[in-house]
Amino acid sequence: MTDLDLMLRFMLQVLVVLGACKVIGYLGVRFLGQAQVTMEMVAGVMLGPSLFGMLAPDFQNSLFPLKNEAGTGKHPSMMILYIVAQIGLVLYMFLVGTEFDLNLIKGKSKSALSISGAGILFPFLFGVMAYYGLMANRTGIFGENISDVSRALYLGAAMCITAFPMLARIIYEAGFTGTRLGTLAIGAGATDDAAAWTILAIVLAQSKGDPKIAIFAIGGGILFVSLMLTLGRNALTKFLAGRSLDQNLFTFIVLLVFAGAWFTDAIGVYAVFGAFTLGAAMPKGDLAKALQAKIEPLTVGLFLPFFFVYSGLNTKLSSIQGAEMWTIALIVLIAAIAGKLGGCYLAARLSGEGHTNALGVGILMNSRGLMELIILNIGLQSGVITTQLFSIMVLMAVVTTLMAAPLFKWIKPKLILE
Amino acid sequence: MTDLDLMLRFMLQVLVVLGACKVIGYLGVRFLGQAQVTMEMVAGVMLGPSLFGMLAPDFQNSLFPLKNEAGTGKHPSMMILYIVAQIGLVLYMFLVGTEFDLNLIKGKSKSALSISGAGILFPFLFGVMAYYGLMANRTGIFGENISDVSRALYLGAAMCITAFPMLARIIYEAGFTGTRLGTLAIGAGATDDAAAWTILAIVLAQSKGDPKIAIFAIGGGILFVSLMLTLGRNALTKFLAGRSLDQNLFTFIVLLVFAGAWFTDAIGVYAVFGAFTLGAAMPKGDLAKALQAKIEPLTVGLFLPFFFVYSGLNTKLSSIQGAEMWTIALIVLIAAIAGKLGGCYLAARLSGEGHTNALGVGILMNSRGLMELIILNIGLQSGVITTQLFSIMVLMAVVTTLMAAPLFKWIKPKLILE
Repeated sequence: MTDLDLMLRFMLQVLVVLGACKVIGYLGVRFLGQAQVTMEMVAGVMLGPSLFGMLAPDFQNSLFPLKNEAGTGKHPSMMILYIVAQIGLVLYMFLVGTEFDLNLIKGKSKSALSISGAGILFPFLFGVMAYYGLMANRTGIFGENISDVSRALYLGAAMCITAFPMLARIIYEAGFTGTRLGTLAIGAGATDDAAAWTILAIVLAQSKGDPKIAIFAIGGGILFVSLMLTLGRNALTKFLAGRSLDQNLFTFIVLLVFAGAWFTDAIGVYAVFGAFTLGAAMPKGDLAKALQAKIEPLTVGLFLPFFFVYSGLNTKLSSIQGAEMWTIALIVLIAAIAGKLGGCYLAARLSGEGHTNALGVGILMNSRGLMELIILNIGLQSGVITTQLFSIMVLMAVVTTLMAAPLFKWIKPKLILE
Repeated sequence: MTDLDLMLRFMLQVLVVLGACKVIGYLGVRFLGQAQVTMEMVAGVMLGPSLFGMLAPDFQNSLFPLKNEAGTGKHPSMMILYIVAQIGLVLYMFLVGTEFDLNLIKGKSKSALSISGAGILFPFLFGVMAYYGLMANRTGIFGENISDVSRALYLGAAMCITAFPMLARIIYEAGFTGTRLGTLAIGAGATDDAAAWTILAIVLAQSKGDPKIAIFAIGGGILFVSLMLTLGRNALTKFLAGRSLDQNLFTFIVLLVFAGAWFTDAIGVYAVFGAFTLGAAMPKGDLAKALQAKIEPLTVGLFLPFFFVYSGLNTKLSSIQGAEMWTIALIVLIAAIAGKLGGCYLAARLSGEGHTNALGVGILMNSRGLMELIILNIGLQSGVITTQLFSIMVLMAVVTTLMAAPLFKWIKPKLILE
């Protein structure tokens, strides 16, 4: 396995990954009313063992080898895919952060809080119930050394996820940014993800049996976010005011993004979190737009698809075997939808929204998307869950994400905007 | 070595690589009149065993580990650095290609040919002479199984390299594009690199003892370039006419670039060659400019510095040990400058250029830059040369490249332009 062989394989992977994402994306956008990014999630699963690996196992294994030649560990090609995927993810979450404007939530905080509260409470409870009811006595679903409480908490957190970047994008594309509905959904989505992330940090700390990890993760995370969104934001705004984004400044900002990503990764709350916070701390306006124009093309066009494929390579729908496991998968899916869509609908009604608007919020919040894949990958990487539960949860993420665009398209004309 | 550890280390590498390139680049541009890209070459060498590794060996080794933990092979982190560097290189060579306009050489072909002829002939002869005079009876400089003829040819080809992308950039920044002098230098530089590349393909084919490799490489390479610059260019021009560069089209073009890179890599003439050809086949004008605006920031700001660092990690100036080896290094350097700068000056004078203009062409052609690092890395990767000769040649490349900007700045006001 020389470097030259690795590069030759990597370029083939680029061709197959981008080709599949484009073709499947085109078909999904054109004929199913889906978003490109949703279809890339699907394409990732299809390139893994669930379809491509089932139809042509040898070919798939030569293109995306999982094990090294000795069979003792990961193939270097998989490590490369992981890093390339993470580069894409870090840059993408920074982009999402630059589009995130805290000012939009101000004034709507009470309704947003009650919706986000319901959007955490119900899915979380349903997740914990699903664990104790269905999974507690089974092996092979969670890592061996993980306590019951950690397992239940992780499943609960994984149910709470909202595809916050996707939700923001749908609202933006519908022209709903700044409306009451859009603001509510964005505020609630962001709060839910932050809560799920906090629970995740606790679980990971517990799974390693070291309370210091939890203190570092949660304390460090809260400190980092508060400092970045106050002092950091002010410093950035002052430093960047009036400067044009030349190559030097651009590289400096990329350096800051990776510094933030490195810091949050080092304290145990993952790189994507730091990258997003850096983006959120950036002054909005022309500079943010110029940054997006420079970062988005290669990030979205070349690197991010590798994250979907990397997740897909770890998703083995065939590992959901037997009627019992499929029943569990189905119950998880129903609990996820009932908890999130149902819970948010209920909370929105109680906050005074009408039936259709409440349903609209529920539909938007229900989509799991990219964020769910991130939290699932972290669970798999850190040994909290196995490929089996990973696959069940990816299935749930894909289905809830596929539901979003068509359902929103159906309800959109009925929504009442002020 | 989990994926998470790899990512943590990779982000630290990003911080150190970008930080060093920025700081050293700033100092070099500000105080030495150097170009940013030249200083990044220097930064790469400084981050390797030649400086950072000498000052803080343990720290350097933990940040850029060369060997895996068992000591049996490459560290996964090095493989990742290699691929990230290659991604940067492929995209950068595509960018260089999009700026390459064959029309500029037309009409100046006679002078350009004689200058490029001299720019190949003299360095090549000096390289071959240096091999037979200084290196033929030594071990540890070239790979064991490489024949004398291959070794001499490789050294000759490595001497012929011109920093074609850098030359084009200097001419562009001086506002000389389209002038007689600029056109001459660009035409001659491009021809020299093509010739050096062809010799390299022969050497690699010979070193593997299989004439089929040479036939594939040279035949395939010529076929690829001719088809791409005729049928390919026409097809691209027709297909792209009137289209705006949306995310779909952008991803499609990135896919084409990697397809070309994969093809030339597969036939044995390396990925950079295919990427450059794809760029050269792109229609010039607004679309090329839009592509550059989308690709250049991340490529130049994040990925390309990794190529310099990867080269620097393999450069061990301390492996040039003893008075004899340093004498060889000095002779190689003098031969390289005499052959290229001197040869091109002579040819330009014989083509009717005045003293200063001929010297200007010589100065531009003498810079080895990025292209030399590419050909040296290929030699090292394929086992033709060892780290020792690699280091000697990198030193030559760095010195000739450092000479270019200050010398050109000095002669620029004296040049006679029409």
